[in-house]
Amino acid sequence: MHEPPESLGEFTVVPGGVVAPRDFVGGGAAAGIKPSGDLDLGAILSTRESCTVAGTFTSNRVRAPSVEINAERVADGRARAVVFNSGNANTYTGPEGHADALRMSDAFADCHGVPSDQVLSASTGVIGFRLPMDKVLAGIEALALDSTDGVDVARAMMTTDVCPKSIAVEIPLAAGTLRLGGAAKGAGMIHPNMATMHCFLTTDAWLDPVWAREALRSAVDRSFNLISVDGDQSTSDTVLLFANGAALDAPIDPDSNDAAMFARALDAVTRWLAREMVRGGEGVTKLIDIEVRAATDQAQARAAARAISTSLLVKTAVHGGDPNWGRVIMALGNSGAEFDPSALDLWIGDTQVVASGSPTDYEEASVAAHFQGPDCRISVDLHAGTASSEAWGCDLSKEYVEINSAYMT
Amino acid sequence: MHEPPESLGEFTVVPGGVVAPRDFVGGGAAAGIKPSGDLDLGAILSTRESCTVAGTFTSNRVRAPSVEINAERVADGRARAVVFNSGNANTYTGPEGHADALRMSDAFADCHGVPSDQVLSASTGVIGFRLPMDKVLAGIEALALDSTDGVDVARAMMTTDVCPKSIAVEIPLAAGTLRLGGAAKGAGMIHPNMATMHCFLTTDAWLDPVWAREALRSAVDRSFNLISVDGDQSTSDTVLLFANGAALDAPIDPDSNDAAMFARALDAVTRWLAREMVRGGEGVTKLIDIEVRAATDQAQARAAARAISTSLLVKTAVHGGDPNWGRVIMALGNSGAEFDPSALDLWIGDTQVVASGSPTDYEEASVAAHFQGPDCRISVDLHAGTASSEAWGCDLSKEYVEINSAYMT
Repeated sequence: MHEPPESLGEFTVVPGGVVAPRDFVGGGAAAGIKPSGDLDLGAILSTRESCTVAGTFTSNRVRAPSVEINAERVADGRARAVVFNSGNANTYTGPEGHADALRMSDAFADCHGVPSDQVLSASTGVIGFRLPMDKVLAGIEALALDSTDGVDVARAMMTTDVCPKSIAVEIPLAAGTLRLGGAAKGAGMIHPNMATMHCFLTTDAWLDPVWAREALRSAVDRSFNLISVDGDQSTSDTVLLFANGAALDAPIDPDSNDAAMFARALDAVTRWLAREMVRGGEGVTKLIDIEVRAATDQAQARAAARAISTSLLVKTAVHGGDPNWGRVIMALGNSGAEFDPSALDLWIGDTQVVASGSPTDYEEASVAAHFQGPDCRISVDLHAGTASSEAWGCDLSKEYVEINSAYMT
Repeated sequence: MHEPPESLGEFTVVPGGVVAPRDFVGGGAAAGIKPSGDLDLGAILSTRESCTVAGTFTSNRVRAPSVEINAERVADGRARAVVFNSGNANTYTGPEGHADALRMSDAFADCHGVPSDQVLSASTGVIGFRLPMDKVLAGIEALALDSTDGVDVARAMMTTDVCPKSIAVEIPLAAGTLRLGGAAKGAGMIHPNMATMHCFLTTDAWLDPVWAREALRSAVDRSFNLISVDGDQSTSDTVLLFANGAALDAPIDPDSNDAAMFARALDAVTRWLAREMVRGGEGVTKLIDIEVRAATDQAQARAAARAISTSLLVKTAVHGGDPNWGRVIMALGNSGAEFDPSALDLWIGDTQVVASGSPTDYEEASVAAHFQGPDCRISVDLHAGTASSEAWGCDLSKEYVEINSAYMT
């Protein structure tokens, strides 16, 4: 596992991941869904009955039955648990697959005495095959939940992820010190729009459900919705935020400084998880930080940044440490963003390679050296307006091809 | 070189490629632009003064200077020649690059006694470096043009193409027997929209310029605009059709049967070249034929077909011979096309794997066997309307990554 940092900006990182916030328990088990015998089933539960939930889901027209069910169940802002599996997406499995998703959450609800409509579910893996329900149900019965460590939860969520993605921070509000924890998975089929693969967030904050939904949407838009591994949006993308209020005596006032600080912590955690998702993407050896400045509007800034992050030719150039910045220009030209090619400025790392639309007299070796490192930065000034956007992408390697040529067989 | 077939549908294939039509000459030479010493400079010229031209060009916001100049020069429907180089795209090279493009066509015009504004130019290769004009000008002076064989022309157009793409057919009009020849290049940065990389077409038909432009646009829309190698649209995409009228005494009446037959031949030649372009794409081992039927409208049919052809996960599954059809469903769901997931039918080759939205009881081995062959077919019935579209794509291999990780360095 890639070690979490000591802090995320102003927020101290604490151990425990999704079970760090008070009155949350979780766990992961090997139920035998994955032939490898790795962890493939898990759950997170708020032991407090009162728990607010907010969720964002894939915008793919084809959605997993669990996504359909979750979207209904989060509508009233109340849910206490999510039970999930990896190794099988339970997607495009007909009416039987829908029934399987319901049986999965019902079984967990029965085991833990939680109302069925407060249990969400999530499945990730191959599309088009029924879940092995005997294994799933036996696994749910055997699953041990505790608050010792969130890493097993993150591990049970993984498919081809290189390592689990788990983190928690402390938030020193005026009203009391809170915690916010998160676990995420996502390695391929990653190009979220409105949501991402699976990310579960927990907090012992007391949150108003409507405010929680807005805060989550906004954080997702600035984190998971800006990453791309391979340009393919999954049918299962799900981000859930559970807030059980265990650390506070009253809900956070949406107009308070405490709400602003909580939102900053949510940003910090989702951005960290989003970047880790890219770094742990299939076959990824390099993370690409992209910044587009001075675009006509926000949508164009995002489109331009996303066009760079999804171009196969940019991704392979970065992979090979090839300072072929002409491909960045090509991608910008295809993005739909308005700009005057003769006004453009472009930097690779700290080196300006294009000034006012013409190549500068840069040192090729220093640009190549930057692309050869594990963290690459591409920044662009479009000189067309005042909007800006970041995006995070990764290189495209032979390993990506290898992993995805033999995923199912 | 992949051998051309004996016929394209109703049209007999004849030797000669772009110099097969009467009164066209062409040639290719090694001017030293490519370090490899391969052919990298060439031209096509109508020896008849009267010659109609039609062209379509990239819709990338950043366009090569040669594209800008060509777009102006084809506006009046009159041009007789194109001089071109490979190994350097002469794109994003500032005002000097624009001047270089003009010097290139001017030099050819001087050598062959053609008015400057009737000479087009085209450059393909790496972006952001000035052309070595001494080599280009010496090469133009030394270039020998004849009508013996179009393969040298096609060879001089190549960058990372595996083989030259050259063909000619005979068209037995009532008014007389014509020829239509074509040469094309394109191996990476191939996802044309309005045009494709470089394709030069010649005919000894006498064509009305306005009709020629419409016929070309329509043919390009049904051929090059439906292929994708890597989803990246080049800054140089150019298709040119030269018609010198050498085989006829009068122009073809746009409302005649002869015009309809000529349009069919133009379709046959552009579709063959487009498919060859995919087959010879960077690292390509398999061609994917995609058909989407029963979409709401033409735009949605195209979007759905293109979404399948550009999905990295579909491309890698095909590469690995992995019958993971769930990825096709995922791509369709992301395409923006309207459909009811529970009504969908899907075939891999001749095997129906999804009927009315549920997996059929198909034999996995036969689907895997189909994906393991060199030609793969994916067809979908959306049950949403009456529009349909084809698209052609290819697998994504480690060789693509290798080629594009080290293109420039």
